[in-house]
Amino acid sequence: MNTINNIAIIGLGLLGGSMALSLKEKLQTTIYGIDTNPNHLKKALELQLIDQTATLQDLPQVSLVIIAVPVDKIPEISLTVLNKIQNNTLVFDVGSTKHRICQSIKNHPKRGNFVAAPPIAGTEFSGPEAAISHLFTHKKNIVCDASLTRPDILKTALELFELLGMQTDFMESVAHDTHIAYVSHLSHISSFMLGKTVMEIEKSEKNIFNMAGSGFASTVRLAKSSPETWTPIFIENKESIVKSLDEYIKNLSLFKKYIENEEPEPIFQIMKATNRIKNILP
Amino acid sequence: MNTINNIAIIGLGLLGGSMALSLKEKLQTTIYGIDTNPNHLKKALELQLIDQTATLQDLPQVSLVIIAVPVDKIPEISLTVLNKIQNNTLVFDVGSTKHRICQSIKNHPKRGNFVAAPPIAGTEFSGPEAAISHLFTHKKNIVCDASLTRPDILKTALELFELLGMQTDFMESVAHDTHIAYVSHLSHISSFMLGKTVMEIEKSEKNIFNMAGSGFASTVRLAKSSPETWTPIFIENKESIVKSLDEYIKNLSLFKKYIENEEPEPIFQIMKATNRIKNILP
Repeated sequence: MNTINNIAIIGLGLLGGSMALSLKEKLQTTIYGIDTNPNHLKKALELQLIDQTATLQDLPQVSLVIIAVPVDKIPEISLTVLNKIQNNTLVFDVGSTKHRICQSIKNHPKRGNFVAAPPIAGTEFSGPEAAISHLFTHKKNIVCDASLTRPDILKTALELFELLGMQTDFMESVAHDTHIAYVSHLSHISSFMLGKTVMEIEKSEKNIFNMAGSGFASTVRLAKSSPETWTPIFIENKESIVKSLDEYIKNLSLFKKYIENEEPEPIFQIMKATNRIKNILP
Repeated sequence: MNTINNIAIIGLGLLGGSMALSLKEKLQTTIYGIDTNPNHLKKALELQLIDQTATLQDLPQVSLVIIAVPVDKIPEISLTVLNKIQNNTLVFDVGSTKHRICQSIKNHPKRGNFVAAPPIAGTEFSGPEAAISHLFTHKKNIVCDASLTRPDILKTALELFELLGMQTDFMESVAHDTHIAYVSHLSHISSFMLGKTVMEIEKSEKNIFNMAGSGFASTVRLAKSSPETWTPIFIENKESIVKSLDEYIKNLSLFKKYIENEEPEPIFQIMKATNRIKNILP
């Protein structure tokens, strides 16, 4: 792998902070932290996620830049980063939507330095305090539009992802956004709305707490996620998410109708068919 | 605690089997297994969940009967059990709905022997193979309509639940069914419909598998649950479940509208408010 001397991480939340911890375990480098939130910078230093704070002006000094800010901020920051880096610097982002990011940099002369690489990893927690060193171990990583990255840069990136314990797959950015809308983004919305519905009706927090062991606790887990992270994701990926929500609401309404009509057979068969998920996710 | 010599467990699935394992760890007794499914009986013997198979005719010989069959079967079985037991035998059921069961036995001369006690515990697995000995440890247990149970029987039951590591709370059966519809049953439906929606759209199981780490795996976990168990629960608790589904669909539709209109402010505020679940379920 090309020598990675200095690393800049832009955005020191859950993903950026976890990248910092993971890289520190694997590589001997200096990690520069960049964040518009001074509290995040302070916390990241305190927690030793980063070695020192920096600004975008320091980017010519690093051989790797990781962009881990909310997805609506990534296109603009990516252009700034590509304007400032040296010729052989690797840049990758960890945003959960990919198409608009790839569109915005497609004509940049340093497009080949950029890897659009969303790791399929996260927790419901956020901020530098949420960073954990093993967040990416054994996780999937989907590199989008890989043909637009310079082969030598891509090679370095893939070696780095492997070093972090990730398994990489490849996809076009448009396809990525459509698939992730269903598999990830819809899960977050279903969980947030479940939490909202239950808390609106259940005025007694004690009842929620007492009964949460019945499946609610795990199903509502994602409703603890950061609104700062997820608001721009939902708007960025609006088209696929709205389509997935239409399908989800249609399925809920039909299932409700069967319950209303007390029709055990279709209720049973729908659940039986859905049990197939056991084979996909054992 | 009154001496419990012989125990009959009717229904040897996840809950009945786990009761058997938990009781074997704590008490020196003989456990008789009763099940209409001969495979369950065979498996329960093989796994040493039970000491021997039995029939309803053997009930006069036991001092504790646990009813762990699907909820639509509990009212009828409960009447049969109450008809057959001795004067001081404790009977409890573990069904997830309570009102109709309590209604059906309310005039029985042995109503006082019955404790309506749904433990808030379970996994997405089913059958005797799914039984685990610690399923009830540190779990909540909600005893319904406790005033209708004979005080000495109730005392024995509470001591037994404590022995199994459960924390007991009390509620009226109608209130229980309403609350559990929101906190448990709605979670199961939201999860089943999420699994259905994703599998209908995502023809590629590889994509589902690769992206499941993004939150889908935990949110869809309950969609692995048993249709045999859940079909009768949804129909039994139809009124409250339909109401909860109406609220859930209303919230999803409103959230979808905000995404369609690209309105970050209400999207953010709804998620921020829902984050309160972190305080209730830390």
